[in-house]
Amino acid sequence: MNKRKIVSFIGRIILIEAALMVLPLLVALYYGDGDAWVFAVTILAALIPGVLMARVRQSDRRLSSRDGYFIVAATWIIISLIGAMPLYMAGGFRSYWSALFEIASGFSTTGASVLAQPELLGHGVLFWRSFTHWIGGMGVLVFVMMVMPMENDNSMHLVRAEVPGPTAGKLVPRMRTTSMILYGIYAAMTMILLVLLLLGGMPLFDSFCIAFGTAGTGGFAVSSAGVAGYHSAYIEILLGIFMLLFGVNFNVYHLLLLGKVKDALKSEEVKAYLGIVITATVLISINTFSRVTGLGTTVRNAFFQVASIMTTSGFATVDFNFWPEFSKHTLVLLMIIGACAGSTGGGFKVSRLIILLKAMMAEVRHIITPKAINPVRIDGKPIDKETLNSIRIYAAAYLILICLFTWILSLDGKDLTTNVTAVLSCFNNIGPGLGGVGPMNNFGIYSDWAQVLLSLCMLTGRLEIFPMLLLFGRSMHTR
Amino acid sequence: MNKRKIVSFIGRIILIEAALMVLPLLVALYYGDGDAWVFAVTILAALIPGVLMARVRQSDRRLSSRDGYFIVAATWIIISLIGAMPLYMAGGFRSYWSALFEIASGFSTTGASVLAQPELLGHGVLFWRSFTHWIGGMGVLVFVMMVMPMENDNSMHLVRAEVPGPTAGKLVPRMRTTSMILYGIYAAMTMILLVLLLLGGMPLFDSFCIAFGTAGTGGFAVSSAGVAGYHSAYIEILLGIFMLLFGVNFNVYHLLLLGKVKDALKSEEVKAYLGIVITATVLISINTFSRVTGLGTTVRNAFFQVASIMTTSGFATVDFNFWPEFSKHTLVLLMIIGACAGSTGGGFKVSRLIILLKAMMAEVRHIITPKAINPVRIDGKPIDKETLNSIRIYAAAYLILICLFTWILSLDGKDLTTNVTAVLSCFNNIGPGLGGVGPMNNFGIYSDWAQVLLSLCMLTGRLEIFPMLLLFGRSMHTR
Repeated sequence: MNKRKIVSFIGRIILIEAALMVLPLLVALYYGDGDAWVFAVTILAALIPGVLMARVRQSDRRLSSRDGYFIVAATWIIISLIGAMPLYMAGGFRSYWSALFEIASGFSTTGASVLAQPELLGHGVLFWRSFTHWIGGMGVLVFVMMVMPMENDNSMHLVRAEVPGPTAGKLVPRMRTTSMILYGIYAAMTMILLVLLLLGGMPLFDSFCIAFGTAGTGGFAVSSAGVAGYHSAYIEILLGIFMLLFGVNFNVYHLLLLGKVKDALKSEEVKAYLGIVITATVLISINTFSRVTGLGTTVRNAFFQVASIMTTSGFATVDFNFWPEFSKHTLVLLMIIGACAGSTGGGFKVSRLIILLKAMMAEVRHIITPKAINPVRIDGKPIDKETLNSIRIYAAAYLILICLFTWILSLDGKDLTTNVTAVLSCFNNIGPGLGGVGPMNNFGIYSDWAQVLLSLCMLTGRLEIFPMLLLFGRSMHTR
Repeated sequence: MNKRKIVSFIGRIILIEAALMVLPLLVALYYGDGDAWVFAVTILAALIPGVLMARVRQSDRRLSSRDGYFIVAATWIIISLIGAMPLYMAGGFRSYWSALFEIASGFSTTGASVLAQPELLGHGVLFWRSFTHWIGGMGVLVFVMMVMPMENDNSMHLVRAEVPGPTAGKLVPRMRTTSMILYGIYAAMTMILLVLLLLGGMPLFDSFCIAFGTAGTGGFAVSSAGVAGYHSAYIEILLGIFMLLFGVNFNVYHLLLLGKVKDALKSEEVKAYLGIVITATVLISINTFSRVTGLGTTVRNAFFQVASIMTTSGFATVDFNFWPEFSKHTLVLLMIIGACAGSTGGGFKVSRLIILLKAMMAEVRHIITPKAINPVRIDGKPIDKETLNSIRIYAAAYLILICLFTWILSLDGKDLTTNVTAVLSCFNNIGPGLGGVGPMNNFGIYSDWAQVLLSLCMLTGRLEIFPMLLLFGRSMHTR
């Protein structure tokens, strides 16, 4: 491993995090909640190791693929450990570990909270909490790459390790340009949403926080009433639409910008994604319809929760814990599937599901006619063996890790429905689950060690397993 | 497709089933419950289509791989449809569909029941119910192959499609001899168990039924008290050990018979299987220990339930629905894993899990050093790509079908824990689940259509997915 380069790189990331904390510091000063000091202290505390590490003299050796995975895993853990400090110092969390859960939930764009009443926190802390959604949404390292020039060969390994979905490799050439374009689209869409929220009458502070949470498909609200608290059909529909937009593969927007409208509309993944959203909305509307709520509200509620869960945002306008079982089971299915690859959303990803289903069909055809060759295609192009192989392994690793996390979590004594949906929700970066962790409950029911476990679960899911496996796996030490 | 040959083949299977029903007919006559007529009527009713179909003149064309899968899927459905008739006619089931569930549960060696009090049934019906476990255990078609001479090429396709686990191919040469050896071992072990049960003071009728249920890893008991009703530590320990023995890959016994003790002891799968049983027993013993029950009983109870669930038998001596959550979660994990490939047990199979974990590790190593080639090995031999590929697809299909079955089942309104464990239990041919389908409850809580769905789930799991996918899949019709 290229230790010097790794240390220096992580040092610079710590400095960038310290710089980003100036924003919540200013917010805290502006609102005068008295919380500004927690950011000042954290920034100063981060500066010392940051500067020392960043100044380590680098060798000329390039980063290896393994170094890339190591940096990504270490970075996300370290920024969470530092990011939790202001939350803990400001009070309102029962332990540092609870604050760590909250901020890991922020960076990983999960949006699961341990707080019953977030409104008890100061404005600065609330802002920081939501801002981490926005930073984490497009990838912390993609962000770093934008502000910090690097050789292409190095950045490739980092992006491969960090960007969700099976097709990150395609974005590799001229990484810095690409990441600037993607962040540009991301920022522009966030701005548009912000303006539309303000036009809908949402307070300025809330608009910023909710826009960050929507863009990153995070889901932190600023009060216990959540999005339902604004009592505005306009805001609910607007957020539903924007959650869906942020769950679309950003390559599609890139293609649209380049004027390649036909190519953009061809995406099988986006078609399947919208198809699933519409189907689930219709099914849940039928299943939850009652004369009391009326058709309009029924459909709006169904659409909002479906968009929120499918994109792994996790905002909620109704307590779906009380929905009929079929609707709840449908939401659990959406939890597993998740959003499009290359979006800010988490989950297994629609494209992986499509490819797996096609591979399954190809296997069935192979049984019928063993000699025929049936390549798996997506968007008309055949999937290379390497990608197909890693998707299958990903599916197996996903299944095994979900089981393992749930099993260990059960030592904390909660029931199966709560534990399974808590792990699915954290691993897929959604937010709420069912049972004890339903949308109107919170993760405060778990003890500290379980919250740390779930934090690890969120980061492992956000980084799509392998960086974390490398960090904690035995193989790391055997070479 | 070779329609004539398929029809004639299925006709002969119906005749064999009719012949097998003579046994319960005799039992019913012996005990004089007045149920003998239900078997007589079914046998006569089966003879007509059986003889007509069997006499269809065959072409000389051999069966294709696709024909093999079709025959296997069709056979299991047809023998279940016929096998349910005596149960329905004898009364005690609320509908024909409930009787179908019961007998599909029998043939698939699931052991899930819709009856609260099986002791209300007559002896003939109870015998038939348990006898289907024994027939289904080693595979209906392996049995057929033993009594009916076939060309090797034809039998290969059938066995590939029916025998559980990824290594069926290895048994192929001289199929008939092999199936006779395997059935010989199976029958001998059943006889030994029967004698040991009788020595333990179990009544003759019960001994036969329980021995059938243990050998087939089925799990039907003959009374609502189940195995706990015998109040005998000897019987519980004996059954625990024999369930484990029937969950071992039968190739190991074959090797032992051939005097290849070293080869037999080398099996990674068996080592892992026993390792998991011991670990789970220890963990659950610690978790469920209380001074009231005492150490001996605690360990015995833990061992029995672990052996029962891991081997997918499904007998129960305690209501583990009331165990602490960690123990319940551990059982759910064991439900998913299942027994060894090539045994009478169901589930995902230990060998598949080992291979998947090794493939995952290989992928991680591949990320670190992309150029190195890391073949996945089991028992020292590298796994060929074809097998590895089909195991990965199997894992994906397994995950997708579990989700799909659970989702549809939720339309019947039961909670998530009940539905998930009901599907896991049926798909993996175990028997009990948790919640509403716990070991002291029964599947009568589901409505008729849900019971039919679960019957399909049991057969799909028993045949390891692909024959059923072929039967119901669209691909069937496109060629």
